[in-house]
Amino acid sequence: MTKNSQPMFERVALIGLGLIGSSLCHVMRREGLAGHIAGNARSQATRETAMRIGLVDSVHEDPKAAVSDADLVILCAPVGVLGALAETISPSLKPGSILTDVGSVKMAVITDVGAHTPDGVHLIPAHPVAGTEQSGPESGFAELFEDRWCILTPPKDADQNAVKRLEAFWQACGSRVELMDAQHHDLVLAVTSHIPHLIAYNIVGTAADLETVTESEVIKYSAGGFRDFTRIAASDPTMWRDVFLNNKEAVLEVLGRFTEDLAALQRAIRWGHGDMLFDMFSRTRHIRQNIVEAGQETAAPDFGRPHGAPEED
Amino acid sequence: MTKNSQPMFERVALIGLGLIGSSLCHVMRREGLAGHIAGNARSQATRETAMRIGLVDSVHEDPKAAVSDADLVILCAPVGVLGALAETISPSLKPGSILTDVGSVKMAVITDVGAHTPDGVHLIPAHPVAGTEQSGPESGFAELFEDRWCILTPPKDADQNAVKRLEAFWQACGSRVELMDAQHHDLVLAVTSHIPHLIAYNIVGTAADLETVTESEVIKYSAGGFRDFTRIAASDPTMWRDVFLNNKEAVLEVLGRFTEDLAALQRAIRWGHGDMLFDMFSRTRHIRQNIVEAGQETAAPDFGRPHGAPEED
Repeated sequence: MTKNSQPMFERVALIGLGLIGSSLCHVMRREGLAGHIAGNARSQATRETAMRIGLVDSVHEDPKAAVSDADLVILCAPVGVLGALAETISPSLKPGSILTDVGSVKMAVITDVGAHTPDGVHLIPAHPVAGTEQSGPESGFAELFEDRWCILTPPKDADQNAVKRLEAFWQACGSRVELMDAQHHDLVLAVTSHIPHLIAYNIVGTAADLETVTESEVIKYSAGGFRDFTRIAASDPTMWRDVFLNNKEAVLEVLGRFTEDLAALQRAIRWGHGDMLFDMFSRTRHIRQNIVEAGQETAAPDFGRPHGAPEED
Repeated sequence: MTKNSQPMFERVALIGLGLIGSSLCHVMRREGLAGHIAGNARSQATRETAMRIGLVDSVHEDPKAAVSDADLVILCAPVGVLGALAETISPSLKPGSILTDVGSVKMAVITDVGAHTPDGVHLIPAHPVAGTEQSGPESGFAELFEDRWCILTPPKDADQNAVKRLEAFWQACGSRVELMDAQHHDLVLAVTSHIPHLIAYNIVGTAADLETVTESEVIKYSAGGFRDFTRIAASDPTMWRDVFLNNKEAVLEVLGRFTEDLAALQRAIRWGHGDMLFDMFSRTRHIRQNIVEAGQETAAPDFGRPHGAPEED
């Protein structure tokens, strides 16, 4: 890819410099998308790291200073603080600028951030469906968004030009972009992200609490399947607390179905209904195949994990 | 690694040539562990493939012919058929030989296979805790067992020399070996393997059944976490049906705890108990770190999955 001769935005402000914020810095630099990247982070250590490793052009303790004169403001903090952040920066937002976020829930963002968005500033919530289990300013990398979907949930009366500009921005970051109703987004992501995280956290917790099986045994024999769950159960606790508190309705709806289905499986096991188990276990394989074909997963067995040393002969 | 000058066993018979059976063929050949590998598979297609790709030295439609004169017989078929298989091959087993398996449950193997093990044949059940989501004779590879644990559950009166020989065999395959009581094995694996598979199958099924979210949406946004679960939910349905039917007690016990814990999380979400969620989500991260340190998982973020094209600059 080549750098654009003219940056897409003269000044971009990132509020929060964790995995997503720092990955945005890397890809914006690679693609030449921003004339100036201004960063804000609550912790001094993060601000120092951001300057040291060259994530940003300027770093600001005060989020108001970061967003001042910015053409694009991206809130990259946990969803639970976005309302307060928006209230803080509101007076400093530049008329005509785009205000967006990267949160995993969108209805709450529209409500919480929308309440503090001044007239003339274009609020277009966004959610790049991409991540790793790592956090912090040093966990980012430019390829994080490559071929992943970024969902925009513009309000009905959103400025179409602003929507198009944000869409072009995410495409330049490597993403595919989809527009969606915020409420539907929250339901879809409850299925594809929030409930998977919840049950991953839960099984890891259940395993840790057993009196009859030691943690050492859980660790040694985790290659039987358990270790797959520990990846997303290692995700950032603050971010995920906020997701569940802010997408309660959809999460409880999908969770209700999950536990209902699980009870049916439990009953089939108790009563020895092998055919029901076989049918259930047979109809899930094709979904992975489709995910691979859709470019959302590696085709390599076992996620392409290394298995021992390479063969010699 | 170097080939042994003298094979560890003159003739090894493999009953079943799926992922585990074919991986054993590859590693036995690489390490020179068997003078002759005799294979049996129910399906003609598998038998033909096994000969074509050179997995075995001889292939047999009749399992009795495969085990005849074998010094080591390894049952690599789903747990549900092992009793019937043992009954079939029993008259053909060589006195002094070792009879073992690779099943994910062990109490049932001791009962079902033990009932048909002739005097003078050493039954030593085994479970290599290793696998991928792939199946069939072409899915095997020599490194599958490298640094993974293989659990032996010898009966109390087992011949110690035979146990040592099987232990040496699995070590030569690259495994670390642990001896364990069969009942404890079944409980440990219920936690580290069986329940993870069950909830993975379940969430994939729940997602497929939603009327309000399309399968296409589930696939597109699976990188939010869901895709991690689809890997083990793509595992062999026959094998897993048999696991659940044959480890009912331990599975129901651990599943009961899992759903109890999940109900507590559900309640915390409903009532907005953020502190409880945060505490729960904070105490699971270290387990992954310990799994990485124990050599049972890659340290690379996101399982080392590829993220887009390599950076150019």
